[in-house]
Amino acid sequence: MNKVDFLTRRNFIKGLGATGVAFAAPGMANAIVADDNIHWDDQVEMAIIGSGFAGLAAGIEATKHGCKAVTIYEKMAVYGGNSAINGGLFAAPNTPLQQQKGIQDSVDIMVADQLKSGRGVADEKLLRHIASHARDALQMTIDAGAEYYPYLQQLGGHSVPRTYQTKVSCGAGITQPLVNECRKLGVKLQNRSKFEGFILGKDAAVIGIRIRYPYYFEDENSGKLLHIRASKGVLMATGGFAQNVNLRMAQDPTLTAEVGCTNAKGATGEGMLEMFRLGAIPVHLAYIQSGPWASPDEGGFGYVSNYAIFNFPHSIAVNCLTGKRFMNEIADRKTRADAELACRDSAGKPLPPIMITSYAHAKEHPTCENVLKYGVGWKFDDLQSIAKRFNIPLQPLQQQVDEYNAYVKDGEDKQFGKSMAKAKGMYIQAPYTVVRLWPKVHYCQGGVQVNANAEVLDSNTGKAIKGLYAAGEVCGGIHGVSRLGSCSIPECMVMGMTAARSILGA
Amino acid sequence: MNKVDFLTRRNFIKGLGATGVAFAAPGMANAIVADDNIHWDDQVEMAIIGSGFAGLAAGIEATKHGCKAVTIYEKMAVYGGNSAINGGLFAAPNTPLQQQKGIQDSVDIMVADQLKSGRGVADEKLLRHIASHARDALQMTIDAGAEYYPYLQQLGGHSVPRTYQTKVSCGAGITQPLVNECRKLGVKLQNRSKFEGFILGKDAAVIGIRIRYPYYFEDENSGKLLHIRASKGVLMATGGFAQNVNLRMAQDPTLTAEVGCTNAKGATGEGMLEMFRLGAIPVHLAYIQSGPWASPDEGGFGYVSNYAIFNFPHSIAVNCLTGKRFMNEIADRKTRADAELACRDSAGKPLPPIMITSYAHAKEHPTCENVLKYGVGWKFDDLQSIAKRFNIPLQPLQQQVDEYNAYVKDGEDKQFGKSMAKAKGMYIQAPYTVVRLWPKVHYCQGGVQVNANAEVLDSNTGKAIKGLYAAGEVCGGIHGVSRLGSCSIPECMVMGMTAARSILGA
Repeated sequence: MNKVDFLTRRNFIKGLGATGVAFAAPGMANAIVADDNIHWDDQVEMAIIGSGFAGLAAGIEATKHGCKAVTIYEKMAVYGGNSAINGGLFAAPNTPLQQQKGIQDSVDIMVADQLKSGRGVADEKLLRHIASHARDALQMTIDAGAEYYPYLQQLGGHSVPRTYQTKVSCGAGITQPLVNECRKLGVKLQNRSKFEGFILGKDAAVIGIRIRYPYYFEDENSGKLLHIRASKGVLMATGGFAQNVNLRMAQDPTLTAEVGCTNAKGATGEGMLEMFRLGAIPVHLAYIQSGPWASPDEGGFGYVSNYAIFNFPHSIAVNCLTGKRFMNEIADRKTRADAELACRDSAGKPLPPIMITSYAHAKEHPTCENVLKYGVGWKFDDLQSIAKRFNIPLQPLQQQVDEYNAYVKDGEDKQFGKSMAKAKGMYIQAPYTVVRLWPKVHYCQGGVQVNANAEVLDSNTGKAIKGLYAAGEVCGGIHGVSRLGSCSIPECMVMGMTAARSILGA
Repeated sequence: MNKVDFLTRRNFIKGLGATGVAFAAPGMANAIVADDNIHWDDQVEMAIIGSGFAGLAAGIEATKHGCKAVTIYEKMAVYGGNSAINGGLFAAPNTPLQQQKGIQDSVDIMVADQLKSGRGVADEKLLRHIASHARDALQMTIDAGAEYYPYLQQLGGHSVPRTYQTKVSCGAGITQPLVNECRKLGVKLQNRSKFEGFILGKDAAVIGIRIRYPYYFEDENSGKLLHIRASKGVLMATGGFAQNVNLRMAQDPTLTAEVGCTNAKGATGEGMLEMFRLGAIPVHLAYIQSGPWASPDEGGFGYVSNYAIFNFPHSIAVNCLTGKRFMNEIADRKTRADAELACRDSAGKPLPPIMITSYAHAKEHPTCENVLKYGVGWKFDDLQSIAKRFNIPLQPLQQQVDEYNAYVKDGEDKQFGKSMAKAKGMYIQAPYTVVRLWPKVHYCQGGVQVNANAEVLDSNTGKAIKGLYAAGEVCGGIHGVSRLGSCSIPECMVMGMTAARSILGA
């Protein structure tokens, strides 16, 4: 049970009559319908819920299109939401770095990669819209001061290197500059502001929101309820629900509270649930992505995730029971997570596989230092020591390394068809670094259905719900069964920017 | 766009004020909150929406537990809903026929089969509850007069024969007797009664429903709105949404209006959508099942479906391009549907595979006659004629039949590991009958989340929504990714019976 929301609703129902609005929502909904006497505590043109990539990009885009009164409401004390702690990986086609390095890429190629990972049920129209505007979104972050490594990565499932990464190796390298940019442009940011429900006009359009302020996370009685009028529209940029254990277990009973999760605590999905109560179409909630680059030896996203993402192309992942590889190390996330989850001891218990990398290559990424320093990865001088430490049969392991090195030499992976383009000359050689792998809940492909105007569609009519927009992980169906790595930031930002333009009729 | 529901909602919003209730729902919701002056057009203890297996079983069970006033509301002119046109296949463990034939089975074995097909995300607790009561539900149908063949079938994914089939080879062989039984017991049945929304008490409990009556399908202005008070509870037994093209395309863009569907026209899901607006938890909407036994040569469920279900164990399915088998003919539905959809010509266009059966075996099932009579299946004297008719390379086909017959002899399928227990001595021999196969949208694994009391859970609290119950295909999450054939009828009936007992506190 989600105690937080339960209390909220009860309190709201108890508090009826003193709110200055006509009547309470039926059912359990938190929405209310405004009457002529409603007292508005504040009035904006555009109200944005959530200060992650989508919300911040929307704020900036809105001011660029002449919006004078836009406020971003953030329920936590700090800005950035779950975006601030992600990997800071940004995929886009036709970027300056691709041009500089002579990499042939296009919107079509990027969309094709994503459709494949989406396993036939991704939304091609939206993917195309996002890929077409990804470079502009990247530019917005650079203009705001985001700094990226001077190289591109080729992440799992991508057919070419097209992924930028922030120099701080996390999303805060983008959200922080965007927050500063928002402030510079006059976008108001208000933290400790929890979305509690919609305010509707008599024609059922969304005309405002109820915000609890100042709100202290998990103290549902903190602050007081404010009525915010949003004259042009409300953008829900509230993120995913990976931290809502009830909801994720409803979709997949194995994703209990004990299963690791890379997300920020606030990723509980109440904004999405409230939109369902308004008639938004639930899409693909069942598709919850686990990150195949996570480590069982640390909490959350940790250090290993970025380390592994960087090193997978020139590393081998080994099943400790067999001493053999068991997957294409740069397949899409779902393919790899499923393969890792199948690594079991003889009794069927989880046996996290290991990833072996040449230290010479691993140390090229700054996270390597932290991985070793914090003891979530280890350095070894020879395969004997690795075999002993992880109880791996030595001979098959030795044979596997030799075999793989032959693939590196020939440029062809005869075991799993991994693209060896990025592994040219990168043999697995001593000394080695090793991390353990086990998937963690990372991303919700599901959410509310939106169109390419970021409008939220109504389940009865198939048409847009007036005044309501959504962008980012709260939306569903865009990526299909499995999202490719580094495709969330462009999606969040492009759709946030799109929503701003839609709301303003720009 | 679903024109039907759109009109409904608009009409409702327009009609406000004349309804005798306090106020309209916010957003797009159709729910209303009753005030003290509400005029009730009728008053029952238990209101059941939908007259399929779940609703009818609930009606009967309710009267058995002393309920004096239970009404089943059916939106169509005829009773039975989609249930009446399904295959009439009923799986249960430990049945009289199993005992008579010495088949070892148990709740555990049946649940294990279903969990496997559910691919790790089925609801084991609910499956166990249903399997434990399936025999009682079967008995209810027999007591009401349902007649079954004197043999059991072993359907795809089931490890033993445990499936009864009605003598009329369709669900009407159950719904009709249950309708008669309801009438005998004093359960009121009211057709042309369309559910339009919930009526809530001031504590947000469901206390009644709005019904449009007399309603003529697709004429949303027909009849008038009635307020029905349901003093003990409302059971939503409204079925799936396979005929709601918008909603199924939101989950899977390939399921366009052009894709065949076995369901009755009324399976549009508006009852489910209305529950989401009340806060019910959407589960597994993305898992839409296509029936691998359907034919592209007829509309809907047709004649071929039951024919193929009966004959798969002792038939071969052949890819017309290769002349070879391409699947275990009794694997679970999703495995087979996926394999069939992969049958393509050299240009990638759909090339429906064929199923070849010895006529001597096919004619054992009464549907064979209709399949031949209506030209949706054909009889051939030799393989040459089959190869010629379907443009199949003859030599591989001949070789395939010989190979398969060796598997029949040895009792072991070396190609796909099909269980040959039911194919003992059943060689593929002339004359043959042949049908073509292509999946059709058949069943929605997704819906609202319920617990083992058939209570509908609230997305904010995880607790039951007061006064609201659901049973049958409108519920989600029970079967996971893929439901096994013949497991829907026991689910519908057991959960309908469960709901009746819950509502009555029995």
